[in-house]
Amino acid sequence: MEKNLARLKNVLNEIYDINAATAVLSWDQQTYMPKGGAEERACQLAALSKISHEKFCSPEVGQLLNSLEKSVPSLSRESDEACLIRVTRHLYNKKTKVPAKLVAEFASVTSIAQTVWEEARAKSDFAMFRPHLEKIVSLRQEYAALFSPYDHIYDPLLDDFEPGLKTAEVSRIFNEIKPEQSRLVEKISGKPEINNSFLFKPLYDEQRQWDFGVKVASAFGYDWTRGRQDRTAHPFTTTFGQGDVRITTRVFKDNLMSGLFSTMHEAGHAIYEQGISRLLKRTVLSDGASLAIHESQSRMWENLVGRSRDFWTYFYPKLMEKFSDGLAGVSMENFYRAINKVKPSLIRVEADEATYNLHIMLRFELEKDLMENKIQVKDLPELWRIKMCEYLNVCPEKDSDGVLQDVHWSCGIFGYFPTYAIGNLVSAQLWEKINAELPGLSGSIRNGEFKHLLSWLRDKIHRHGAKFSPQELVKKATGSEIRPEPYLAYLKKKFGDIYGLN
Amino acid sequence: MEKNLARLKNVLNEIYDINAATAVLSWDQQTYMPKGGAEERACQLAALSKISHEKFCSPEVGQLLNSLEKSVPSLSRESDEACLIRVTRHLYNKKTKVPAKLVAEFASVTSIAQTVWEEARAKSDFAMFRPHLEKIVSLRQEYAALFSPYDHIYDPLLDDFEPGLKTAEVSRIFNEIKPEQSRLVEKISGKPEINNSFLFKPLYDEQRQWDFGVKVASAFGYDWTRGRQDRTAHPFTTTFGQGDVRITTRVFKDNLMSGLFSTMHEAGHAIYEQGISRLLKRTVLSDGASLAIHESQSRMWENLVGRSRDFWTYFYPKLMEKFSDGLAGVSMENFYRAINKVKPSLIRVEADEATYNLHIMLRFELEKDLMENKIQVKDLPELWRIKMCEYLNVCPEKDSDGVLQDVHWSCGIFGYFPTYAIGNLVSAQLWEKINAELPGLSGSIRNGEFKHLLSWLRDKIHRHGAKFSPQELVKKATGSEIRPEPYLAYLKKKFGDIYGLN
Repeated sequence: MEKNLARLKNVLNEIYDINAATAVLSWDQQTYMPKGGAEERACQLAALSKISHEKFCSPEVGQLLNSLEKSVPSLSRESDEACLIRVTRHLYNKKTKVPAKLVAEFASVTSIAQTVWEEARAKSDFAMFRPHLEKIVSLRQEYAALFSPYDHIYDPLLDDFEPGLKTAEVSRIFNEIKPEQSRLVEKISGKPEINNSFLFKPLYDEQRQWDFGVKVASAFGYDWTRGRQDRTAHPFTTTFGQGDVRITTRVFKDNLMSGLFSTMHEAGHAIYEQGISRLLKRTVLSDGASLAIHESQSRMWENLVGRSRDFWTYFYPKLMEKFSDGLAGVSMENFYRAINKVKPSLIRVEADEATYNLHIMLRFELEKDLMENKIQVKDLPELWRIKMCEYLNVCPEKDSDGVLQDVHWSCGIFGYFPTYAIGNLVSAQLWEKINAELPGLSGSIRNGEFKHLLSWLRDKIHRHGAKFSPQELVKKATGSEIRPEPYLAYLKKKFGDIYGLN
Repeated sequence: MEKNLARLKNVLNEIYDINAATAVLSWDQQTYMPKGGAEERACQLAALSKISHEKFCSPEVGQLLNSLEKSVPSLSRESDEACLIRVTRHLYNKKTKVPAKLVAEFASVTSIAQTVWEEARAKSDFAMFRPHLEKIVSLRQEYAALFSPYDHIYDPLLDDFEPGLKTAEVSRIFNEIKPEQSRLVEKISGKPEINNSFLFKPLYDEQRQWDFGVKVASAFGYDWTRGRQDRTAHPFTTTFGQGDVRITTRVFKDNLMSGLFSTMHEAGHAIYEQGISRLLKRTVLSDGASLAIHESQSRMWENLVGRSRDFWTYFYPKLMEKFSDGLAGVSMENFYRAINKVKPSLIRVEADEATYNLHIMLRFELEKDLMENKIQVKDLPELWRIKMCEYLNVCPEKDSDGVLQDVHWSCGIFGYFPTYAIGNLVSAQLWEKINAELPGLSGSIRNGEFKHLLSWLRDKIHRHGAKFSPQELVKKATGSEIRPEPYLAYLKKKFGDIYGLN
């Protein structure tokens, strides 16, 4: 066993290194690569992906797993070794089940579809995109079918992002929150609109915004000796190893919040990755447990911390100092209300906390029904409109503001959207537990101190990496599996207070 | 043949892509990587090197070459295909002859030696470094011996950087130039010293220096849509493909010339790589012909162009505009003399054009004698002192200013130094030919125009990539193999004029 385990780790180390190299290339592509580098960069990325895939799907890995699994019963279920074998097996089974031909076809179809989608969105022309999306849906069905039997054809897709989570669980959770969030949004819409126009005046120096974001990320606990921040069109976090977890952001002179909150969000992702146990280094376990768990971290720092009164009690005076032009005469309370303004909108990425999940549920329902062939691609624009009107009371006039707004489907990403909403729920569930265990948390945050919060997250979430499934991890941390109540309670309390609903 | 050639290109493409990925990782390491990334980055680089090596040294490549070589007689010697097969064979034979054990031992010995060398240089303690260098020399001898029979044991080392060039040829050339350059330097030392102190006043804004360098590189023809410039401790050029050739530099407020000339130098390297024929893309031929040819390009733009009166006739007024503080009262002629000041010094990297080659010859002689066991590592400090006194009339008091000054030997790089001097010679030999074929060149440069020069280089040097050996390429371009006369004539004319020697 020792020898086989060492060999497996060796192979996984090499694959991790290759994937990390891929991540470096991809980061460079989005930050510094000159235009002329695109064509060859695509070749480089393809070469590394192919090598990584071949090495991971090799018969040797299968044989090592077969022989190591005989020893698993003698290991503690929570030991690093048992988890390594279990997680590697799960990934191995998934990856080796997919024929190379399907992988190649999917890559080629989605590559073309992305270009078409860009044009279709610009022209708001769904008909243009439709045949590509039809092909993608059918390829995703073909992919999912490889993993039958399943409870639901959407399960294998969801599992790619949330290991072990079932469509039925997501449906149950979403069905609980949807009416409540809808009702909340409806109530808010009866109240006077909050004025947040001062946030969008062209008065906010970009370098100062950048520096402020850096300060906040440092206060949260982002370790700059193991990371850095660069500018990109779309913010993201990327990991080249435990010693190098980078974030990106963008800042706009006429938007005080966009850059800052995206820095908080990405720092949340990055702090998670920086906190994974060093013992798991350079293996499949040196990763987040799932996208939802990842999102629970980013959304916690962005929203539960970064959009809280406690946080701004400490930071607002500092912000005012830096941006006295734009914030002159704005009280802390009005600032707090402005950054938490609820306004149903057509575009998910700009959605506030109260409406965000409703966008997600719409997509989840459409994806699920598409996979089941309950609905057809051709009906998507109309179904999208109907659901938007129903859930958010806003109705897109153009498909570019509707069904064409997200990049995900053109990339063939199905099963991903729910993780955003589940991440929100998990963030609140953890928050409830943290506050129970750290009664002084609110006061610490009012003093700009986050180390107890960080320690809790390090201990309960970060260090475990990908050892446990999202449900297992949430249960270990909070005592129960993912549940919607804490998030609903959080929303109702926060927005009830802001909008005087209670 | 078609099929085998396509397959060979395929394999070479993939290897090129992996090597390009390695170059990106290495660039990032020197530009933006946070400190914490070092350990895992080393693993990533090692993983990619190993894969690239395995793929290149695979039996399949050998079989493809064997079968393709049967068709070579039917191909034109200068065709891309014949060259591809010839160059790949040369590399294949070299790489496959080296046992993996030796490669690993060499990597480990030199990795340790570099750390020791850094400390030894800081303490000026050669005794510390000596055992490591002894081991390295013996490993290099072992390496060279793998390629016996040869005319000289130094030949296989030289060949790694200058395919086909022989130690005897280098010796012959160096023996011709050494006395002449020594005599020139001696004559100059009898003349009044040039005042260049104004170049080293802390009056030169770094950003302005940067911008000026960018302008000059653009004027030379460096294509910024296929490259970029970043800051590093040591300037370098790196290639990720024909569409992405990057340079780096550093600028100091109290040194007007360091940043600018290093930008010119690196732009020279980069313009070469950007000019390789697209037909050779992603193969072993998409590379410089040799290090000396590469250096001939960088030194041409840096010295024959960048340190010429013609160049500054156009650019000096622009420089004065940007740096009126530091250059107030400095005439164009005094500026020109200052940037061409000759002063024998202990340190190679700071050497002027007249003394530079003498540094190189010293190292070449020592390396050659070490390989032949004519001298011992223990005698190096003393031999270094004697030669410095003899060739340059300056004598290091400390080994840190002498035998410990260069990083090369600690990295195990033997055979590399001569390429610097040969590059200088080639630059002048090409320059002589270019001026004969482009009689208006001097006038163009005085107008800040370089396009005819660039076209000539593109046609005669750049586009060929690594198709021809350095000697072949120089002969094709100038009508004769590498010869020392043009460089000697250039030096004598330029410095005779500046120092009034004639």
